[in-house]
Amino acid sequence: MAASSRKRSAGEHEFLEALRSAASRLGGSSGVVIGIGDDAAVVRTGPRTVLTTDSLIEGVHFHGGWLTPAELGRRAFRVSASDVAAMGGRPRYVLLSLEAPPLAAAGSGFDIAFAMEILRGLAGDARRVGAELVGGNVSAAAQWGVTVTVVGSAPTRPVTRGGARVGDLVLVTGALGGAAAGVRTLAQGSAGARRLPLRREAVTSAYRKPPCRLGLGADLAEARLLRSMIDVSDGLVQDLGHLCRHSDVSISFDSLEVPIHRAATTAVDGARDAALALALGGGEDYELAMTAAPANRNAIERIAARHRCRLTVIGTVTAGSSGVTDVRGMLGGQRGFDHFRAAGKPKGRR
Amino acid sequence: MAASSRKRSAGEHEFLEALRSAASRLGGSSGVVIGIGDDAAVVRTGPRTVLTTDSLIEGVHFHGGWLTPAELGRRAFRVSASDVAAMGGRPRYVLLSLEAPPLAAAGSGFDIAFAMEILRGLAGDARRVGAELVGGNVSAAAQWGVTVTVVGSAPTRPVTRGGARVGDLVLVTGALGGAAAGVRTLAQGSAGARRLPLRREAVTSAYRKPPCRLGLGADLAEARLLRSMIDVSDGLVQDLGHLCRHSDVSISFDSLEVPIHRAATTAVDGARDAALALALGGGEDYELAMTAAPANRNAIERIAARHRCRLTVIGTVTAGSSGVTDVRGMLGGQRGFDHFRAAGKPKGRR
Repeated sequence: MAASSRKRSAGEHEFLEALRSAASRLGGSSGVVIGIGDDAAVVRTGPRTVLTTDSLIEGVHFHGGWLTPAELGRRAFRVSASDVAAMGGRPRYVLLSLEAPPLAAAGSGFDIAFAMEILRGLAGDARRVGAELVGGNVSAAAQWGVTVTVVGSAPTRPVTRGGARVGDLVLVTGALGGAAAGVRTLAQGSAGARRLPLRREAVTSAYRKPPCRLGLGADLAEARLLRSMIDVSDGLVQDLGHLCRHSDVSISFDSLEVPIHRAATTAVDGARDAALALALGGGEDYELAMTAAPANRNAIERIAARHRCRLTVIGTVTAGSSGVTDVRGMLGGQRGFDHFRAAGKPKGRR
Repeated sequence: MAASSRKRSAGEHEFLEALRSAASRLGGSSGVVIGIGDDAAVVRTGPRTVLTTDSLIEGVHFHGGWLTPAELGRRAFRVSASDVAAMGGRPRYVLLSLEAPPLAAAGSGFDIAFAMEILRGLAGDARRVGAELVGGNVSAAAQWGVTVTVVGSAPTRPVTRGGARVGDLVLVTGALGGAAAGVRTLAQGSAGARRLPLRREAVTSAYRKPPCRLGLGADLAEARLLRSMIDVSDGLVQDLGHLCRHSDVSISFDSLEVPIHRAATTAVDGARDAALALALGGGEDYELAMTAAPANRNAIERIAARHRCRLTVIGTVTAGSSGVTDVRGMLGGQRGFDHFRAAGKPKGRR
């Protein structure tokens, strides 16, 4: 009866209906006892469950035109699923909370086609890794926003940030700096697009389609080959710092060994130090950084090979409280970006 | 390195740190294997789990000054938890996704004190019903937004919207129309507050503090006394309509039996039809509507009495597809409110 109503809108009903049909079209029923359409979902769970939630908000985590709606949905899923992977878990169920700006032109409703593409990108990607969309809601807001909760099964011994021990090897999956290169290129806007559309496509692909290390993280955890793990979201150096603090150790790594994403090199026209800076501090890579006893190295590499995943030893865990140090001395001040400081305003490196 | 970064901001780190300490201060460790602070939480779960997510967005579901931040946190929890109650589940774990507008004055950061009050209101209320806050994140956005995911344990036989059978009694907990009366009063703004501050306090309390029927819903479900259940969020008539559609039945009720919240009567200065309209169509009541075999009535009433919860038989389930009808013929067109049509603009009844 008033603008504050929590009551479902007509558009919301339409979206939920579409969501239900998308979910059942895409979804097998594995584990889902009661899916979308009742007050809440009921699912089968094991004795230990991994839970995480994260959001992508327009003007903060992406800007109009950076991602297709399907890419936005997929990215939102992978950002949250990456946290499940970093515990050694396997995503099983997904909930979507969508915010959609009211259509200015029509004066009512929201862009349901755009919303449905987000939904399809998310649900389709989730399904490919064995997870099912089981709930969702949509609300009006000033901007697009995609909040994804992932519910996963946990291994008997979840891999935390706190298990690293002195002498462990430090390993990282894939290559780093690609997402940061993509953000940089996207923030430069359409001038770049006109000049080099193909290059732009390649340089932004790591941002638009984050890697998915779900199977690898879970397989390594279930084989009990790891001592600690974190996903690379803040940036490699900062995330290794989290491992150090949680484990009460230090990490010494060799920046010459850090795998640099091709897109990072391309984005800075081959300048090695600039590319390395993207790899060390750019963040949003959604690769996995982990530590393991040296004796487990071969077994780990075999599993990575099975997943066709590049895996690089970049350093070792050391004693003391010096934190993360590069044996080459290449570390500048790698800080996290404060998105409250510059919400909505794309900026260059500070 | 750019405004789109998913990397954690300084404010976000501070909030997550506060969140972790609030969670561990408030929380026992019941069921929580790994709490806030790692990549994801790990929790103990039973074989069947209830999952639901919902959002309260400023300008849509509430307006500045309508709720204290603690009330906002509590309301956000109860709105989601109500869906768990309606399946007969018990909330166990809670995840919070918070959106906070950047502080205009300071040009950076967000109102962390306000955010912490939301968090405390939510975590404290959750804890009182045995649920633990295990994860959260905060992002800049154009408005405050609180998205809450509740993970609950499910009874052996969850109570759905689809189990109503011809001959069932239709029951409703508590009294209805109070939240709608509160919204109406709050939307009228401060004029009312100056005139009648005490009345305003009383009239808005059902909106500011929704009921919590968690224990009752679960106890009735575990005793297998119910055939179907839904929480009253869209408005009684609309929600009974959902029961009808899911169960392929109709419902005949007596509007003279519908328990009208005192606030609804007060808000319309005692006009009976206007108060009834709020009770039938206002929504956001977060009471439970249920159907049960007549033979179970006494057992149900005993459990409700134990919970000190008013429970009223308002009608019966009938055959056919006539939907929801009132034997007194009082039903007007009760539609859901489309918040995309009027986001941000408080309106009177249409």
